[in-house]
Amino acid sequence: MKVLSILLLSSLPYLVMAQQRPREAGIKIGVLPTGAGNAITDVEGVRVGQITLYEGADVRTGVTAILQHGGNIFQQKVPAAVYVGNGFGKLTGSTQIEELGTMETPIVLTNTLSVPTAADGLIDWTLGQGGNENVRSVNAVVGETNDGTLNDIRGRYIKKEHVLNALAQASDGKVEEGNVGAGTGTVCFGWKGGIGTSSRKLPQNLGGYTVGVLVQSNFGGVLQVDGVPVGEVLGKYAFKDNLDKSAAGSCMIVVATDAPLDARNLKRLAKRAMLGLGKTGGIAENGSGDYVLAFSTVNRVLHETQQATSGATLLHNDYVSPLFMAVIEATEEAIINSLFMAKTSTGFNGSKVEELPEDQVLQIMKKYGRLN
Amino acid sequence: MKVLSILLLSSLPYLVMAQQRPREAGIKIGVLPTGAGNAITDVEGVRVGQITLYEGADVRTGVTAILQHGGNIFQQKVPAAVYVGNGFGKLTGSTQIEELGTMETPIVLTNTLSVPTAADGLIDWTLGQGGNENVRSVNAVVGETNDGTLNDIRGRYIKKEHVLNALAQASDGKVEEGNVGAGTGTVCFGWKGGIGTSSRKLPQNLGGYTVGVLVQSNFGGVLQVDGVPVGEVLGKYAFKDNLDKSAAGSCMIVVATDAPLDARNLKRLAKRAMLGLGKTGGIAENGSGDYVLAFSTVNRVLHETQQATSGATLLHNDYVSPLFMAVIEATEEAIINSLFMAKTSTGFNGSKVEELPEDQVLQIMKKYGRLN
Amino acid sequence: MKVLSILLLSSLPYLVMAQQRPREAGIKIGVLPTGAGNAITDVEGVRVGQITLYEGADVRTGVTAILQHGGNIFQQKVPAAVYVGNGFGKLTGSTQIEELGTMETPIVLTNTLSVPTAADGLIDWTLGQGGNENVRSVNAVVGETNDGTLNDIRGRYIKKEHVLNALAQASDGKVEEGNVGAGTGTVCFGWKGGIGTSSRKLPQNLGGYTVGVLVQSNFGGVLQVDGVPVGEVLGKYAFKDNLDKSAAGSCMIVVATDAPLDARNLKRLAKRAMLGLGKTGGIAENGSGDYVLAFSTVNRVLHETQQATSGATLLHNDYVSPLFMAVIEATEEAIINSLFMAKTSTGFNGSKVEELPEDQVLQIMKKYGRLN
Amino acid sequence: MKVLSILLLSSLPYLVMAQQRPREAGIKIGVLPTGAGNAITDVEGVRVGQITLYEGADVRTGVTAILQHGGNIFQQKVPAAVYVGNGFGKLTGSTQIEELGTMETPIVLTNTLSVPTAADGLIDWTLGQGGNENVRSVNAVVGETNDGTLNDIRGRYIKKEHVLNALAQASDGKVEEGNVGAGTGTVCFGWKGGIGTSSRKLPQNLGGYTVGVLVQSNFGGVLQVDGVPVGEVLGKYAFKDNLDKSAAGSCMIVVATDAPLDARNLKRLAKRAMLGLGKTGGIAENGSGDYVLAFSTVNRVLHETQQATSGATLLHNDYVSPLFMAVIEATEEAIINSLFMAKTSTGFNGSKVEELPEDQVLQIMKKYGRLN
Repeated sequence: MKVLSILLLSSLPYLVMAQQRPREAGIKIGVLPTGAGNAITDVEGVRVGQITLYEGADVRTGVTAILQHGGNIFQQKVPAAVYVGNGFGKLTGSTQIEELGTMETPIVLTNTLSVPTAADGLIDWTLGQGGNENVRSVNAVVGETNDGTLNDIRGRYIKKEHVLNALAQASDGKVEEGNVGAGTGTVCFGWKGGIGTSSRKLPQNLGGYTVGVLVQSNFGGVLQVDGVPVGEVLGKYAFKDNLDKSAAGSCMIVVATDAPLDARNLKRLAKRAMLGLGKTGGIAENGSGDYVLAFSTVNRVLHETQQATSGATLLHNDYVSPLFMAVIEATEEAIINSLFMAKTSTGFNGSKVEELPEDQVLQIMKKYGRLN
Repeated sequence: MKVLSILLLSSLPYLVMAQQRPREAGIKIGVLPTGAGNAITDVEGVRVGQITLYEGADVRTGVTAILQHGGNIFQQKVPAAVYVGNGFGKLTGSTQIEELGTMETPIVLTNTLSVPTAADGLIDWTLGQGGNENVRSVNAVVGETNDGTLNDIRGRYIKKEHVLNALAQASDGKVEEGNVGAGTGTVCFGWKGGIGTSSRKLPQNLGGYTVGVLVQSNFGGVLQVDGVPVGEVLGKYAFKDNLDKSAAGSCMIVVATDAPLDARNLKRLAKRAMLGLGKTGGIAENGSGDYVLAFSTVNRVLHETQQATSGATLLHNDYVSPLFMAVIEATEEAIINSLFMAKTSTGFNGSKVEELPEDQVLQIMKKYGRLN
Repeated sequence: MKVLSILLLSSLPYLVMAQQRPREAGIKIGVLPTGAGNAITDVEGVRVGQITLYEGADVRTGVTAILQHGGNIFQQKVPAAVYVGNGFGKLTGSTQIEELGTMETPIVLTNTLSVPTAADGLIDWTLGQGGNENVRSVNAVVGETNDGTLNDIRGRYIKKEHVLNALAQASDGKVEEGNVGAGTGTVCFGWKGGIGTSSRKLPQNLGGYTVGVLVQSNFGGVLQVDGVPVGEVLGKYAFKDNLDKSAAGSCMIVVATDAPLDARNLKRLAKRAMLGLGKTGGIAENGSGDYVLAFSTVNRVLHETQQATSGATLLHNDYVSPLFMAVIEATEEAIINSLFMAKTSTGFNGSKVEELPEDQVLQIMKKYGRLN
Repeated sequence: MKVLSILLLSSLPYLVMAQQRPREAGIKIGVLPTGAGNAITDVEGVRVGQITLYEGADVRTGVTAILQHGGNIFQQKVPAAVYVGNGFGKLTGSTQIEELGTMETPIVLTNTLSVPTAADGLIDWTLGQGGNENVRSVNAVVGETNDGTLNDIRGRYIKKEHVLNALAQASDGKVEEGNVGAGTGTVCFGWKGGIGTSSRKLPQNLGGYTVGVLVQSNFGGVLQVDGVPVGEVLGKYAFKDNLDKSAAGSCMIVVATDAPLDARNLKRLAKRAMLGLGKTGGIAENGSGDYVLAFSTVNRVLHETQQATSGATLLHNDYVSPLFMAVIEATEEAIINSLFMAKTSTGFNGSKVEELPEDQVLQIMKKYGRLN
């Protein structure tokens, strides 16, 4: 196995020309305001690190890591939940999150056949953190989608160091979108998909909380951009002609919030993210691994404690609905962002996946009464 | 308790003026063709019966019954599943459906506080069917939404005979929509909601199966009609100003198909119906009882048999995705139908709920590039 | 329908001769100490009320009500969870408990075909409580088992007043066991079953919490009493000769605790109760409706509040296991108690169900090294 | 990293003296007959392969692989289900099994921190099978328990070749039990645990089907052997003195059958296995990863097919209960077998775990009326 060079997205030639996020182009999804960066990192403490593998003709894959806070995540677990939109996927760590209501590692996204390697890297990282010298059980959380169209996925090019590097370089602030990290080789609605992110910040009278979403988009259906039937107009959508397995695919969705939700309400929040996916035209088809991982940055749970009980501040059920609206909007926008920010890519076996034709889409949006 | 007169919808003066279904007005939701009647009754054998209680100033409620086939439903159970979109509701019968993978009674929809009465009526009906003389356990399936804005719900005006009458008059063919049956008093996106139905018939190369949906719409969010932001344009949507509990509500969704799906794949089908609800702008807020009941009319399961095993014809997982697309489209359209077909109603305590302003909506649709 | 006289258990002639609880006879199940009364009412504030219908030759049924605390249960909901051991049953209210993590009514147990009537009674009761004048949605929690062997279950003799009476006369302290309330007509392991209760009080170094259990036993398998193969020795067990449907049946299990568990940990507690059922020889066969309803009396949730957030004291996951052990022991003992306290009964259609032959069982227990 | 020698159990000196299975010693658990070998391999086609790592002072771990049939498992998937008894574990592959109702790889068991390596090996194996040249998505099923008391688990000594070797040497017939494969370093009820297996063959009038179980025992509670309170008599049980985390642990349970159960009924079967665990005194405590994986060897599902539908023969719900009884008995006996067949072991950091004192236990069994 030759050593792969690790390319950071910012240095890639195919991204010389800056792309525009849909909101900058005048597409305003939903009715709630975004956070400052319209990104998952708007939730304080959340950091994202990405490694992109773009090598030769056939390697188009990568790693995206999301860290829930800046401390020792294993020692200070976060309340968390998983919702399975459709379970044709290889997500690891779901049953322990469901049972204990917490996450104890960062979330790592990669390609389908590299989940074990990524999990192994995440275990390395966790065992190696200061304070974890006696840790002998780690629930690594790794999600994936299948980038096998553009990427030589059977080659399994992801190595543990890629995961460690993604974790090491995680930062707050801007999150790269499109053909980057775990989204390097993904395909969405027949166009190039990838990483996308968005956020909503509730007005103070609705709680003032922030909800951030990051997606790895790799699924199919009938694309709608803010309700406009773009897929239909462009004549490209699932089952247009026949039962086309290539329309298949998955979406990993990560949801962060600073609202004081326990595992039960985080699961409800996670469940709503799928409604945002539905609004983009996704159908959660048979072959999809559509998973939503949601966590709160507050009410952390100590790994070890001599105190049998502890106090928590919890949001009353009656006050969660604005967060539901927020996550639906942010998920929809994160997916649309992933499409707008992705670029045409060639890859494995001579494959080529075109990017969404932004100019054409903006024309359609205009015709359909948006962008006025 | 005085005897209430039971009014059939067709005789109600407030419905003298015929309304138009959205599709007739040029609103074409989705890419798949509808069944012949664009109704749940397009699935062969399925019948619907409705009883409307519209009495005095305060009684605005009713019963909608869906029969899975024309035989003895208890003796010939249908494969079935339940999906809970949001469980703030009083659906009865869910755990047995989940465990055994079958339904053994018709589905009855009514108001929240009348579920026990309706279940009791459904038990009466089942015990009374020829061939059920020795039946001593009945899993009555009754769903509800809360019509307490327009209806004096604490009065509990539904009686067992209403349920028996709805079952008795069930028929195939056209299904009344809007302020009828269990939709008599419901409210959706702040306008008058009610009963709606729609269907999709897959092309032969996708299996040729029919999926039919019937909804009892009573929920909130930010209304979108075929992707057009009608709620936002009209300035009427959830949390516009503050945390408004009146935006709350529920949606019962019944899905029928003639595709040979077992309980597992029916549950997946049911789950997708929520994506259709999401596309109308629903957010499945905290107070919602959003339940999807799905059944197949084939591969019936005999109540009693001397044969330990029996043969079933099952659709392979790889072929279910077009059905997923179908149920999303049909659910979206059924909800929109319920809104277009409902009429302004006054009710309990001087309340008044306006119907969706169809003319205005059609203008908006036109402005947004639809209805060309 | 003639009016049935309601008989309180204490006045029934067939109970003139006092029976002995197994523990008094020297059978000590488990390693943890019981609470003061070895009953669900050992959890402070919990009350039980029962109505027994024993009329003529054919009516053998009743109602058992469990109240979670002495206040307005709807206005001060309790954290709660449901676990479905096997879902061939008609429990109402499960999905809302699962979604919201709370119960808002007492728990009522009765026979299968009387669930709607009991639910209706519970709604009456709730709407009628002072402070509930504006309540328009009630999640009535009613469980059942099928007493159709001894009881003319199709007669549906339970009326709303029976439910209201059971609720009205609820008290703390001693709980009647055996052929009483919802256990009047039940059958367990082929012998007469009924209501049973037990509790465990953890030592202070394990938290000092109390766990109380109440069961309505009506199921089959191969009876074991504290591990001793009583069913096998007596030659009476499921599938001894062939596929015997009469072995079928259900068990409702109610679990109360004063430990500060949230809904997630209450569900885990509920799940363990089934291990206690398993230890009695139950197999949760196909026809069983085995449900566990668990609630905590602390961290109550207000129905309405102007405070979006509130503080809760929660037990850390690491400290829940002794409660798991407690609920397993208490469930096992509650079931055994129900058998020992039940008496031979005749009933519907000339049926007769013998009580467990206590003397013989005690002889067996002695032979097998117990009762030394 | 030095190369570890792989030792096959049959050559280990500490096993020179043959041990007796409990049934040979006269302990007869349950009322149903066993299969010919009283092992999971009694289900036709099922094979087991194990690799034991016993090296130096600190390495006490291994791999146990279960193959569902002798063909290409990916191309001919088996109907399957997962039940989570308690989810504090790292099982991979659960959500896809749940969604699609099938397994497509063998099941591999190992230690907690080696799950990713084992999954990677299982992917290697699957990609390398003839006919799988185009496979680009593999749902590897790997379970684990934590052998960190006896094994230097942080050393992660399991390599992919161990997994490949375990798969390669899988055979039908006798299954080694005790300190072997994934059970090399496990601890159960405070004594040495390990691998155990058992089976039941239903009489023809109950269907004639076989149910086989294999366990990796590593959990705690209050040991009961066929109902006899061995743990209590020996004074060794969970929470005897205080909240002792060392009592913690997990149990992986694999269930095979030739009964024609679909995924829904396999999940019900899996659920009953936990009742068998409960009968040994297990409490599924907080730290347990108690998972049951169940599969049927009939009604295989082709990976690819041009036929949208296919016929299946399914067992009617009414006929599944004897299988439930069978799996409870076989699970109980498999766990007891794992204890009786395990030998005292020293390991990591000078640790030592004693084997169950069989002679003493047999004395207790005799005193308690068994072994007559």
